[in-house]
Amino acid sequence: MPKPVLDFWFDFASVYSFLASMRIAPLADAAGVSVRWRPFLLGPIFASQGMKDSPFNLFPVKGQHMIRDVQRTADEIGVGFRWPDAFPQSSVLASRVALVGLKDTWGEDFSRAVFHAEYAENRVISESHVIADILTKLKVPVDATFASAQADDIKTELRDLTADAAKRGFFGAPTFTTADGELFWGNDRLEQALRWAKK
Amino acid sequence: MPKPVLDFWFDFASVYSFLASMRIAPLADAAGVSVRWRPFLLGPIFASQGMKDSPFNLFPVKGQHMIRDVQRTADEIGVGFRWPDAFPQSSVLASRVALVGLKDTWGEDFSRAVFHAEYAENRVISESHVIADILTKLKVPVDATFASAQADDIKTELRDLTADAAKRGFFGAPTFTTADGELFWGNDRLEQALRWAKK
Repeated sequence: MPKPVLDFWFDFASVYSFLASMRIAPLADAAGVSVRWRPFLLGPIFASQGMKDSPFNLFPVKGQHMIRDVQRTADEIGVGFRWPDAFPQSSVLASRVALVGLKDTWGEDFSRAVFHAEYAENRVISESHVIADILTKLKVPVDATFASAQADDIKTELRDLTADAAKRGFFGAPTFTTADGELFWGNDRLEQALRWAKK
Repeated sequence: MPKPVLDFWFDFASVYSFLASMRIAPLADAAGVSVRWRPFLLGPIFASQGMKDSPFNLFPVKGQHMIRDVQRTADEIGVGFRWPDAFPQSSVLASRVALVGLKDTWGEDFSRAVFHAEYAENRVISESHVIADILTKLKVPVDATFASAQADDIKTELRDLTADAAKRGFFGAPTFTTADGELFWGNDRLEQALRWAKK
């Protein structure tokens, strides 16, 4: 019997997506669920819902708390964390490169490394040299990958994923969806989404 | 050694406070933590942060999802749930009566019964006959309790709790606070708050 599938929708700009990216692989393995990584862009979705900035910045009291909340969870799962000087960061380049890698073998490792660079190493993931460094560490050819990432099919794929996310009623990230159309929002719903996928 | 203490701040208007109220007693017992129930009013806090209605109503896409989210969690914990026809409901009367009960032995049972009436039985908890029914079932004298609930000391206590919540930077409910001043927001942080309280 094929494994049940859970789609993991993430935006590299989203710090709770960072936490989910660090947790999902072992939890899904233990649950016997396959995960499909789905980068998308929250910006256009927030904008269509009347939000012109990250909720962290729009609701400062809540935003300050959320940084503390992320710190506590990062400590519990044993992952480094520091709030980046630049927030939110544009995730377009990283998402396109991730889509190239997800058709190959290195997409998930790349995605985790991008999240770690942004949320543990205070690097700016919209800068191409930062992405190039990550690719180099993964022994992925930089120039060819950048060329693929800027090709029309990848640009279209990221737009389509974002349009699909909007159509499904997303309003944040990470979001998990199941084959039967159920939607779970937030790193803290990952375990529940895995249980649902197995039903 | 005395048990560590966790403060459980809730608003009867808050549906995630309902879920927490149904979960907290057995989890805290298992963790060896004492819980102090702290009713407060979210309305003035939301208003001071520029929100004039529940976030469920202000962000309708998210609000619709949250109803589904509550349903799934209620199903998992085995608690009945139906979204009430009236939302949000004024929690002033119920909170004052709860404060009377929390000085006696019946405050927690009363609080759970109020949440259940509102979020499982479609009753309107701002109506005094609904509160009277709950008191009667708990064999608590109705008239004397209503008189106590409308006395100045209880009114002041609820105002003071709400002012304290605002001062601590609350922005939602339920909120859990520990003796060392840590703040946890949301039913989904209850387990983490209990772990912290024990540290």
